[in-house]
Amino acid sequence: MTRPRQLSIHLNRGNGDSLQEQLSQNLRERIVAGDIAPGVALPSSRELAADLQVSRNTVVYAYDRLMGEGYLESRPRSGIFVNPKIRGAAGMGDRGSNDKGVSVAKLDKESTFKSPVPFRPCQPDVRLFPLSQWNRIRSRILRSTGTNLLNYQSQFALGLPQLRQALSRYLESRSVECQWQQIAITCGSQQALYLLSRILLRPGDKVLMEEPGYMGARQAFELAGAKVMTMKVDEEGAIPPSSTSQFKLIYTTPSRQFPTGASMPVARRIEMLKMARRANAWLLEDDYDSEFRYSRPPLPSLHSLDERKEVIYLGTMSKVLFPSLRIGYAVLPEELLKPFEALRLIVEDHGPLIDQAVMAEFIETGWFFRHIRRCRKVYATRLEHFLKTMQRAGVPLRFPFVEGGMNQTGYFLDEQVDAAQVSMLLRETYGLDIPPLSLYSQREEPAGLVFGFTAFDARITTTNITKLAQGLMKIA
Amino acid sequence: MTRPRQLSIHLNRGNGDSLQEQLSQNLRERIVAGDIAPGVALPSSRELAADLQVSRNTVVYAYDRLMGEGYLESRPRSGIFVNPKIRGAAGMGDRGSNDKGVSVAKLDKESTFKSPVPFRPCQPDVRLFPLSQWNRIRSRILRSTGTNLLNYQSQFALGLPQLRQALSRYLESRSVECQWQQIAITCGSQQALYLLSRILLRPGDKVLMEEPGYMGARQAFELAGAKVMTMKVDEEGAIPPSSTSQFKLIYTTPSRQFPTGASMPVARRIEMLKMARRANAWLLEDDYDSEFRYSRPPLPSLHSLDERKEVIYLGTMSKVLFPSLRIGYAVLPEELLKPFEALRLIVEDHGPLIDQAVMAEFIETGWFFRHIRRCRKVYATRLEHFLKTMQRAGVPLRFPFVEGGMNQTGYFLDEQVDAAQVSMLLRETYGLDIPPLSLYSQREEPAGLVFGFTAFDARITTTNITKLAQGLMKIA
Repeated sequence: MTRPRQLSIHLNRGNGDSLQEQLSQNLRERIVAGDIAPGVALPSSRELAADLQVSRNTVVYAYDRLMGEGYLESRPRSGIFVNPKIRGAAGMGDRGSNDKGVSVAKLDKESTFKSPVPFRPCQPDVRLFPLSQWNRIRSRILRSTGTNLLNYQSQFALGLPQLRQALSRYLESRSVECQWQQIAITCGSQQALYLLSRILLRPGDKVLMEEPGYMGARQAFELAGAKVMTMKVDEEGAIPPSSTSQFKLIYTTPSRQFPTGASMPVARRIEMLKMARRANAWLLEDDYDSEFRYSRPPLPSLHSLDERKEVIYLGTMSKVLFPSLRIGYAVLPEELLKPFEALRLIVEDHGPLIDQAVMAEFIETGWFFRHIRRCRKVYATRLEHFLKTMQRAGVPLRFPFVEGGMNQTGYFLDEQVDAAQVSMLLRETYGLDIPPLSLYSQREEPAGLVFGFTAFDARITTTNITKLAQGLMKIA
Repeated sequence: MTRPRQLSIHLNRGNGDSLQEQLSQNLRERIVAGDIAPGVALPSSRELAADLQVSRNTVVYAYDRLMGEGYLESRPRSGIFVNPKIRGAAGMGDRGSNDKGVSVAKLDKESTFKSPVPFRPCQPDVRLFPLSQWNRIRSRILRSTGTNLLNYQSQFALGLPQLRQALSRYLESRSVECQWQQIAITCGSQQALYLLSRILLRPGDKVLMEEPGYMGARQAFELAGAKVMTMKVDEEGAIPPSSTSQFKLIYTTPSRQFPTGASMPVARRIEMLKMARRANAWLLEDDYDSEFRYSRPPLPSLHSLDERKEVIYLGTMSKVLFPSLRIGYAVLPEELLKPFEALRLIVEDHGPLIDQAVMAEFIETGWFFRHIRRCRKVYATRLEHFLKTMQRAGVPLRFPFVEGGMNQTGYFLDEQVDAAQVSMLLRETYGLDIPPLSLYSQREEPAGLVFGFTAFDARITTTNITKLAQGLMKIA
């Protein structure tokens, strides 16, 4: 195995870029320039961190980033390697040459698109998706609408009416009653979080959210200049504070708290609504995966319990259809519709339309419901298998009961374990992607790891739980 | 013909909403409630404006908005009607009923997607697009990548590497030299304008742009709190001011000034770059349709003439492929890449990926270039036909020579004509969509109308120029 003895990397603590940024940039350039050849093994994060006198996190995150970009790849139990499929890397630098575009780190197509690594949270199994049916509907629509669907349609800044109507009917099954005109289609629910933050929040406004909680939401709030305060979470989800503080916005995931999976009982939902009223706040209900309940009936949404009509309800198709579709939606109180539309027109005019038309038809023809039912069944089986295998393998983690969802949080029996450190080692040495609970929090959290189980079939789950058990035996 | 004698609409000048908003909302509700039945003719904008004692513009824009939303339709020479395809409109209001979603203003699919009305500017003829070839590539890609393309791929916040590489090669033909890593794929070029405004501009920053100019850019700058100053435009495009004022950003469309179509000669491009350097400003070069030159060779981009590497180059696929695809791109100076990626991750994570993969292959297999060549040929013929027919019809407009593009500005021979008023009447009475030059400006502009010619074949062009000639005879 070739291994570059000495990488001679120089990091500069004063130049404004983080060390991690500098390190990834440095490695990237060396790989592209051919200094570090395709297929070569890199030093372990421990070695390189010691060499460079930086924290091990710095190296791990730089490696992770370059893996994401396709420059590096991780081989379980062997280490981190320069992607052997980077071709002609040495051709870099000749800006004038005609094939410069080709020569720079051109990656094989297959290697670019990755399926999720076990046990990355929140990943649906896209192999279950009836893609051929989706494509048949797409062909049919393109035939019947002619080419008109290809034109500009800025009048649909909030999405195609057909899709908004289909969703309004579907949402009844999730106890969300609304007019279709209140539904806005977005590029994933992340876009809804961003647009709403811009519309509702001014610098200094206070936002209340769960902790641990969804970092994508926190980032959107903070970018708008809001001051983020947090609610603790227990086995009934977020705990509404009893104070009389005023907030502009309260963000919660009552169906299934992210990432703990706790489901909020009705009594607490009502308490949450009362608290929001006291605080004079908009209530943002992010219902990101409630399609995946496996036994119990769904609880009424905050949206349905609210009489003030000040709950904003968010959903996404990333989990029930497929993530790269990038379709989410928001059910907006009427007074927010116009500002939302006006902002969206400036942010991107309107979204891509063909997929929206296909999705509307996919819902109307019943395929959507069939697909959800199928996923529910498969995922329920996988959950059972996941928990059973964990138990059988004697993994030193405790999994509190969580009904449904896509993730399970395992708490270390030994509460002193440094879960972040363990997670890093599992990633690096065993090629497992299991974030620590602390990733979703800025305060100290119990020692836990968050596992996704939905994207991985029984064989993959068994194999990787075996790996995990071995790993934890050595390192935890 | 049924015509509601008296609409009894009450507008409230003090309630914060514009009269136009109130009027459209009022009409929308009445239509949905069934008060105004499907198929019914509405009063002319002149009558209703007199009734309500509002300006005629208010009524025209409200009607226009409801046409865009599908509630109303315009029938040339007959007037404005409630869309007869709105079914079961009277079912509104019963929020509890099970089929409420269905009953509310459900529109026929075909009526929702519209092809552009003559002579709306900047519209490609999507019927020329080789959709079946595009779909074949799509199927092939989905077969070869398996389902991996359906997964989350946040590592591609700036777009698929394949597409960025294909574009970097393509851009050489437009004299833009860059590394593929500098290219960011966006949701139309509008998103690039928005993201860049947020990254580069702080409230109070000064931005310089062309006037008349692109309003989508102005809105993005103003939303970021910038103070927009303007440059005048002549037959060589934007005139760089000789002052030594400082600007944060300068926005220009040198290949083909929008909307006048003027092409900026090299000498002035160099002057513009010098001015930008003096002003200490980023230079934003929006090259929105330079694919469509019909005879002369392209001029070097500002990007290629710039040695400071402070030109940001924008392009879009809306015109060369099809608009509802919503793919645009920005070539970013290296220091902007990280902030751009970071912001995009919060705004929407990443964009839809399947279309990006298809587009990369569409470029690599040569279909892209074939399609552009075909469009160029067809559009060149249409331009010739357009100008000849205008001349033959004796339309009282003067068309200065403009090489290429998708639009032609016609200036009234009689400079006293109120072009905005004429444009409105043409829309209302003749069903023509020909904006006045003043739509793109906040100061007084010469009396002119902006025509798109690319989306309309010879037959449509001839018919509608005849209508136009008749109309102008009566009203201008």
